[in-house]
Amino acid sequence: MTEDTSSSLEADVFARDCSSRETLQGITGRWGILVLAALGEGSYRFSALRRRVDGVSERMLSQTLQSLERDGMITRTVLEAIPPKVEYDLTPLGREVADRLVGLIEVVQSNMGDVYASRDRYDSR
Amino acid sequence: MTEDTSSSLEADVFARDCSSRETLQGITGRWGILVLAALGEGSYRFSALRRRVDGVSERMLSQTLQSLERDGMITRTVLEAIPPKVEYDLTPLGREVADRLVGLIEVVQSNMGDVYASRDRYDSR
Repeated sequence: MTEDTSSSLEADVFARDCSSRETLQGITGRWGILVLAALGEGSYRFSALRRRVDGVSERMLSQTLQSLERDGMITRTVLEAIPPKVEYDLTPLGREVADRLVGLIEVVQSNMGDVYASRDRYDSR
Repeated sequence: MTEDTSSSLEADVFARDCSSRETLQGITGRWGILVLAALGEGSYRFSALRRRVDGVSERMLSQTLQSLERDGMITRTVLEAIPPKVEYDLTPLGREVADRLVGLIEVVQSNMGDVYASRDRYDSR
């Protein structure tokens, strides 16, 4: 783990031991990317977020949120209520990341026709 | 699989069965993101790409390249030579995707100090 904060070494995701690679993978993992993109729409409570990120299990969503909170991408706020409510939001850094993920998702979604056509060509050769 | 190219349904990565989610995961998977970002720098041959994407096995790189080629993100060109040389390049769609991935990587790399500080706070509470 290259986690010496006083290090003058630059982060490099191409280097196998750089922990920026691990952070990148948390952000772009199976659920991280969808959770961050959803929170880009605004605050979510756990149950609403689970409905938005269709298919995620309670356990995976919980793990993903913990990992994103640990890396400083999201905040978890307990609101005083009976029963207590927990709300998740992006941090400023999470917002920067989410904006880029949403841009990426838009490119993918709007080009799925090309992707399908490419798959057909590939599979039929 | 929702792969009907004539479908008028919009792609939605938040829907569990939409194949845009699978495409997004191929692009942002452990090796896909690094391979696309590397090819954003220019053409690569297999062995040079394997050196650039530090830590990837021959088998995983080969699988990643096949999947990206199938989805229309990269091209594979066999150059006449003895022995034959194989070169990988981004397609125009792959370029759009890679530009966004490189932007994302830059945000992560330049904010690792904040990420480490956040982890320290999280782990010490």
